[in-house]
Amino acid sequence: MTHNSDLPRADATRARLLDAAIEAFANKGFHGTTTRDIAAAAGMSPAALYVHHKSKEELLYLISRNGHEDTLRLVRDAIASSEVPVEALRQVIHDFAVYHAEGHTRARIVNYELAALTPEHYGEIREIRRDIEGELRQLVERGVVSGAFDVPDTHLAGVALLSLGIDIARWYREGQLWSPEWIGESYAKIALRIVGAD
Amino acid sequence: MTHNSDLPRADATRARLLDAAIEAFANKGFHGTTTRDIAAAAGMSPAALYVHHKSKEELLYLISRNGHEDTLRLVRDAIASSEVPVEALRQVIHDFAVYHAEGHTRARIVNYELAALTPEHYGEIREIRRDIEGELRQLVERGVVSGAFDVPDTHLAGVALLSLGIDIARWYREGQLWSPEWIGESYAKIALRIVGAD
Repeated sequence: MTHNSDLPRADATRARLLDAAIEAFANKGFHGTTTRDIAAAAGMSPAALYVHHKSKEELLYLISRNGHEDTLRLVRDAIASSEVPVEALRQVIHDFAVYHAEGHTRARIVNYELAALTPEHYGEIREIRRDIEGELRQLVERGVVSGAFDVPDTHLAGVALLSLGIDIARWYREGQLWSPEWIGESYAKIALRIVGAD
Repeated sequence: MTHNSDLPRADATRARLLDAAIEAFANKGFHGTTTRDIAAAAGMSPAALYVHHKSKEELLYLISRNGHEDTLRLVRDAIASSEVPVEALRQVIHDFAVYHAEGHTRARIVNYELAALTPEHYGEIREIRRDIEGELRQLVERGVVSGAFDVPDTHLAGVALLSLGIDIARWYREGQLWSPEWIGESYAKIALRIVGAD
């Protein structure tokens, strides 16, 4: 019974450490953050942190993997929401933009601290990024084949569409005039123009 | 005479320190870099560094100010190259994209380490960023007034256009299939679509 009741508590502790790590990395960057900072922000001792996570890099890896897996799921769900390429593109760009505005703090770490991962962890994250890019590129190609889109280079169009969304994490801050929802709707319209479906 | 011949040498030393700081910040982030790292990369002692620069933050500020001033000049020159909004937009987006691809290492520091500046320095940089955004927004407004562009929100269109260029610094690496020139030309076409002038 102790074992069973300890498991959720360990999960909650791990989650608290991830949240603390996101805050610390956002404030001081990965390299400027110590495990002591993270433990302190989570109200724990550095020794207690090591019970749950092997290293600071492991925390970054978990934040990055969760963020990328969430993004891939979001992109797949949005694209699957319609057989019509115009509608699928509208949905995926809307959702992708809203996600990066609402979760801008985590998204900055996920996108701008990749160089701090070990080569092995980076390789794993890179695969998920390729899947995300592949999903979007395939949608653009499907739209071109169906005649709904007119794009000179589907690869670059895919990069540009993702770029717009990712860069929201750089410039968006709470208290902005624009709501995430409004940015999502506006960026969906811009995306349709980029693929020549306006 | 000693005074005269020392001046260019001091300038060269300061430039070498800035280059070393760019490399160090790019590798380990601003917070993860020590003045000792920068001095070592420039082949100097930490004490010698302090003769030329008061602090690590001052180096970041100088890198950031130079980068932003160069960008503002580039944007103004490109926009002034033609009275025709379509041509001016093509030129400014081309030049802005090429600049961020070719100078991606410096551009990453310039755009992603702003939070590490002192409030006073950040305020100064923010003014230059507002000027850059203002130049682009005015060009979009001019295009709309002339009937060449069709844009629902000139402010957001301006942000999206700059976003595409800035984000190149995040994903571009040497040895990429795409040349900076090709990206510049392709992004100019995408920009014309975004403003409805395709």
